[in-house]
Amino acid sequence: MQHISVAVIPGDGIGPEVMEEGLKVLKSIEEIHGGLRFEWDTFDWSCRYYLKHGRMMPENGLDVLREYDVILLGAIGAPTVPDHISLWELLLPIRRTFQQYINLRPIKLLRGLESPLRHKSHEHLDFVVVRENTEGEYSDMGGRLHRGTPYEMAVQNNVFTRYGVERVVKYAFNLAEKRRKRVAAATKSNGINHTMPFWDEIVREIAARHPDVRTDIYHIDALAAYFVTRPESFDVVVASNLFGDILTDLGAALVGGLGLAPSGNINPERAYPSMFEPIHGSAPDIAGKGIANPIAQIWSISMMMEHLHQPELAGLILEAIEEVLAERKVLTPDLGGKASTAELGGELVRKLKALS
Amino acid sequence: MQHISVAVIPGDGIGPEVMEEGLKVLKSIEEIHGGLRFEWDTFDWSCRYYLKHGRMMPENGLDVLREYDVILLGAIGAPTVPDHISLWELLLPIRRTFQQYINLRPIKLLRGLESPLRHKSHEHLDFVVVRENTEGEYSDMGGRLHRGTPYEMAVQNNVFTRYGVERVVKYAFNLAEKRRKRVAAATKSNGINHTMPFWDEIVREIAARHPDVRTDIYHIDALAAYFVTRPESFDVVVASNLFGDILTDLGAALVGGLGLAPSGNINPERAYPSMFEPIHGSAPDIAGKGIANPIAQIWSISMMMEHLHQPELAGLILEAIEEVLAERKVLTPDLGGKASTAELGGELVRKLKALS
Ligand SMILES: CC(C)[C@H](C(=O)O)[C@@H](O)C(=O)O
Ligand SMILES: CC(C)[C@H](C(=O)O)[C@@H](O)C(=O)O
Repeated sequence: MQHISVAVIPGDGIGPEVMEEGLKVLKSIEEIHGGLRFEWDTFDWSCRYYLKHGRMMPENGLDVLREYDVILLGAIGAPTVPDHISLWELLLPIRRTFQQYINLRPIKLLRGLESPLRHKSHEHLDFVVVRENTEGEYSDMGGRLHRGTPYEMAVQNNVFTRYGVERVVKYAFNLAEKRRKRVAAATKSNGINHTMPFWDEIVREIAARHPDVRTDIYHIDALAAYFVTRPESFDVVVASNLFGDILTDLGAALVGGLGLAPSGNINPERAYPSMFEPIHGSAPDIAGKGIANPIAQIWSISMMMEHLHQPELAGLILEAIEEVLAERKVLTPDLGGKASTAELGGELVRKLKALS
Repeated sequence: MQHISVAVIPGDGIGPEVMEEGLKVLKSIEEIHGGLRFEWDTFDWSCRYYLKHGRMMPENGLDVLREYDVILLGAIGAPTVPDHISLWELLLPIRRTFQQYINLRPIKLLRGLESPLRHKSHEHLDFVVVRENTEGEYSDMGGRLHRGTPYEMAVQNNVFTRYGVERVVKYAFNLAEKRRKRVAAATKSNGINHTMPFWDEIVREIAARHPDVRTDIYHIDALAAYFVTRPESFDVVVASNLFGDILTDLGAALVGGLGLAPSGNINPERAYPSMFEPIHGSAPDIAGKGIANPIAQIWSISMMMEHLHQPELAGLILEAIEEVLAERKVLTPDLGGKASTAELGGELVRKLKALS
């Protein structure tokens, strides 16, 4: 029997709603795979927690999480708590402390879904974005001067280290070796003239060690346009923290919306727990209505299975999602249906069991 | 007789090719409007110039340009000259020295064109991006440390000043007052936690003075997705230098491609010349073939006419473009046709005269 410890952080807004469906999937995986046991603990760290305790998580929160094999997150953020608290005191410290330097985000149009792009279908939309997840534009370094005067200004440092860039770019090339052998790197070295030329240099160095991988370096503006005009040309896209963030929300919109888009925050060395979470936020506007789409959460669990060396289970979950989408019978409102979160979750679990 | 002096900088690659058609349009405007004379001088400042003279423009280049009413630019950049030279020694110094702090970029699906977005047509795609054009992420401030060691790093400062942000945000709100009274501001204050919260503060201050304008502040990742999912919700989008750059290339892709997208680099106070240029670059891959689309260049001239207080002429040029597109007879390859740059330019001039 393999025991996997999971720290579950449902978070805010629709987070707990979609997490509930995710946990149903975890349970059914145990049924399907006799030799696997999930031991999960749920942590109510969130904006609610903050409003009660004055912090997003207990002082020893990171030490607690460190003991788990993996972390499963719902969504963090609420209108009542400024982002610079809710995110910088929970989500971002987890990504950084646990050296989850790979943010892996598949952009894949599932069967049963139509892209908003007129001339693009499944064969055109199947790539993965490897986003740097620990440094770059989200550096926390900087500040404000001359507050309250006409001369007020704010400065923020983008910080790119060779260490930080090399490891994410290497990961992207290794991934491309196992896929269609193409890497597109996002840059903006024509406008951002210190950090991005440095990024390009490292991309070229590592590309030189992978002569069988076709490498293209595109400015982020052009790249965003190419996502629309020729998504079929992409296999692995590697991008800095900010550029990866923008490209993956855009990518998600091209394959059916944020309700579907999963992500893995991965420490490839497995020295620390990796974290799996939907790309979507806490969506306060629809929270509490029971209509949130649980697919992004459940697809994140599929990515978690992949990380846990269970590719068959990962594939099975994705297949269940695709079949339910293709049947078009039980769909949440964002997908044009009338089903509730729990109904779609239940249907996915049924399908998962039927397929196994 | 009104005399308008124009500094013409055709630049590199397809720049001179599309500029030739632009100049035909300038000439025909003189014929149409008896009281207008353009006095233009052409400057060969470009990467070609650089390879001959070791600089992108003469030492007194900016002083020369300062004397003109407006600047008309083709495109700058060549594979033989690093971007940090070609752009940072010509394009960006012009934008900055002449305080062209507004980069105005319409995202408008013209009649005769189909959006790559399946469910969107002309009524859904008609907004304008107001991009900050002098500071922000393109600050030129930063550098490199520990070169050649594993500890190498690069830092780049994003610099946002109250002065710089206020003027662009004010412009956007004033523009919205004359349009459909909606402003969407791009931010990323949840991840970039010094400069972007400062930007948001200023947006909120200025929004408070425009209670009749609906203001939304969106994170750039979500905003990029909304460009795809609900472009009809936008009227005026205001964004920092980098975010505006990304959003406008994306926007251009949604309304038919970079071959069509114009821009104005505007000094609203008219203390300095403003500059009009296509968004596209020098496109070395198709340069010299005579197949570049001249519409972005010619639409930029329409924006120049608007700036020169000639809204009728501006409208006429745009109408000519729309009619030629709608007829679908003379189109360059990027639009699915077989016409050359000169044939499409000629057709546009004929249409312009016919309409006048
Ligand atoms: C060439 C580059 C520096 C420039 C920019 O990013 O400003 C271009 O992309 C543009 O949009 O005008
Ligand atoms: C909430 C925010 C800080 C976060 C990010 O930008 O990393 C989110 O947008 C994401 O993509 O996970």
